[in-house]
Order: sequence, then C-alpha cells, then structure tokens
Amino acid sequence: MDNKYIITIARQFGSGGRAIGQKLAEKLGIDFYDKELISLAAKESGINPEVFESVDEKAANSLLYSLSMGLYSFSSGFSAMGDLPVNDKLYILQHKIIRDLAAKGPCVIVGRCADYILKDHDRCISVFIHANMEYRKTRAVEVHNIDKDRAEHIINRTDKSRANYYSFYSGQKWGLAENYNLCVDSSKLSEDQIVDLIISYLEIKDK
Amino acid sequence: MDNKYIITIARQFGSGGRAIGQKLAEKLGIDFYDKELISLAAKESGINPEVFESVDEKAANSLLYSLSMGLYSFSSGFSAMGDLPVNDKLYILQHKIIRDLAAKGPCVIVGRCADYILKDHDRCISVFIHANMEYRKTRAVEVHNIDKDRAEHIINRTDKSRANYYSFYSGQKWGLAENYNLCVDSSKLSEDQIVDLIISYLEIKDK
Repeated sequence: MDNKYIITIARQFGSGGRAIGQKLAEKLGIDFYDKELISLAAKESGINPEVFESVDEKAANSLLYSLSMGLYSFSSGFSAMGDLPVNDKLYILQHKIIRDLAAKGPCVIVGRCADYILKDHDRCISVFIHANMEYRKTRAVEVHNIDKDRAEHIINRTDKSRANYYSFYSGQKWGLAENYNLCVDSSKLSEDQIVDLIISYLEIKDK
Repeated sequence: MDNKYIITIARQFGSGGRAIGQKLAEKLGIDFYDKELISLAAKESGINPEVFESVDEKAANSLLYSLSMGLYSFSSGFSAMGDLPVNDKLYILQHKIIRDLAAKGPCVIVGRCADYILKDHDRCISVFIHANMEYRKTRAVEVHNIDKDRAEHIINRTDKSRANYYSFYSGQKWGLAENYNLCVDSSKLSEDQIVDLIISYLEIKDK
C-alpha cells in the first residue's frame, strides 16, 4: 500500500511490540526507530550515547525542573538545558527528533511518548501493544533470555518504569486505551497477524 | 464471513460504541444485546424491568455483600439472592444470561462487564470503543439530544458510573487497554470503518 502514516508503537514489556513495529516498517518499506533515537539524540547533542542509554525511557527523579523552559529553546541551541537532569535532556532531544522525523515522512516509532508528542499530527496513528502476563513471561524467557523465576519481576519493573516515564512527561496514564488510536492484545493474534491488522487499519482509514 | 465469535463491546458514553455494535451484528447477521439483557433478566427473575432499568450498569452502594455467595447458586434458583441489593441481583442474572448466550452461539453484547464475564471463553473477542471529549460532546448533542452546556458533565458522570460498575464487579479498571483484545478510537474512523476493522480482525484471526 502507499502508506503516508507515522505509526507510533507503545508496548508492555514482553508483548512483542518492538518486533511488531519492526515487521510493520519492513512490510510498509518505511524507517523504524527504537534505540536508533538514542544514537540520533547523542549525535545531535554531542553527549555520550552510553549516558543516554542508561536513562532511556526513565523519568527524572526530580520534579523541580520545568519542562516548558527547555522544550521550546531549540532554536538557540542546547545551552539552556545545562542544568537539567540527563533524563530530561534526552526527552527534550527525542521530542525534537520525533517531531522532525514525523515532518520528514512515514515511519514507525517505538516508545518514548511518541504518541503524546505527535498527538496533534494529522497523519499519526498511535498503537499500544499489550498481552497477558503468561504470554509475556514466556516471551521474556524465549526472546529476551530472562531467567524464568525473575521474568515477572522484570516485566513489572520495566512496565512501571515506562509508565512513570510516560506519565512524567505527558501527564497521561500509560496503557489507558483512550490515549491511543488502536490497542491490540498480542496474546490473541500472532505478530504477523497484528502487522496485517495495523495495515488493514491504514487501508480502511484511506478508503 | 462465517463468523463464529462472540464480540463484547465496552464503550465510553458518546463514542458510538452501541451503534458500532449494532451495525456489526447486522453485517455479521448475528444477535445484538444491549438493553435486551434487562428484559431477559426481568423475564428470568420475574422482577419488574423498570426496577432493573434504574440500576442498569450501576454498582451497588454497599460493599458488604459478597458476590461469590450469589454467583454460584443458580442451580438452586434465585431464592439465595433475596437479601442482595437489586444492582447485585441484576448483575448476577446478567452474568448467567451472558454466559448462556455465549454458549448458544455468535452474538454482539454491549457493556455489563461482558468482556470480564467471558474472559476465558475461547471464541470471545472483547472490544473497547472510546473517543476524545470533543467528538463525544458533539455526538451526545446530535444523537442523544443532550443539551450542549450539560454534555460534558453527563458524559463524565455516565463514564464514572460505568467505571465504578466495572471495577466493582470485575476488580479491574475500566478503559485500561490490557482488559480488552482490541481498543479503537472512534474519532479517527467512521462507525462503518470500525465495523470493517473488527471484521478484519476476525478474518485475520481465522487465517
């Protein structure tokens, strides 16, 4: 199909959201951004990508910093971010990068509040992928090589961190259906079936 | 298509979920249950349907009543429900009716915790329909003839009541993506497009 959409994919840990996003981008022949957003942020700021990696999708610990002062200061460079925690710096950089990518053309973007950042974008479709705990535990063991006994703990910890990150920067609740255009339970369909469903969505929307 | 599924539809007030469910049932040529569940409950219990109507999708005010004592007492008739609030009686009756309907064959069921009641049913697909406030306000005025100035208040009050009902009887949070197999934002697609999307879902699942 002649896709013209930016598809954002938020996902519970172990739900396969990243893999679905990757397959979707391949099938549509468009760019895919997940960890790639860290490299882009590192490149744009000159900050070590390993520093960013350690705080990726984690909210800053302090609420003292007002985001608004940083978010709109890009035209004058990054000096205004000097005092912000590195989490906030990364968010602000990724915010700008996500908007720039969306302005350039169709792509798939995973996580990082992209649905919220592109909320008012005409051609953005936001997707949330989730699955029941049993499915995610099995997948965490098989795909992420996580120890079986620790899988549930790691899943819950990772999702809690993603939820905090999302709520810190968007003021919205992560995983609430109303924040996304389409939410799909990946324990009911295969990854390829979900890719087909998302493509159906785009085709139906264009009819 | 040769549909074999029971589709449950939960919906924010004003999102058009009921209309979508009705169109879906028509297109699939299967039965549709919304307010019809009240008549069935009234018929089964001999209680006045108007009494049930007044408490439909509303949680009981008291937490003192244990549901478990009532839920599994159907084989011995309804006498065990004598002391329960009418809300609980209606829930218990609808619980039984929904399970019986699902056992009979394909249909569309709107609201009333049907997704939760049929959670472990092999052929149940649970859908949640939501939309942004602007869309729902416009629809509330145009379709439900609600006064423009009171629309937002009525939407919030109705959704709060549905959320309480759902959480009271299911112990889960209403509107959380993970409680449904498919959630769709009806402000992004027309009602007919959402019907097509749900049918696509069923077709893809059967492939």
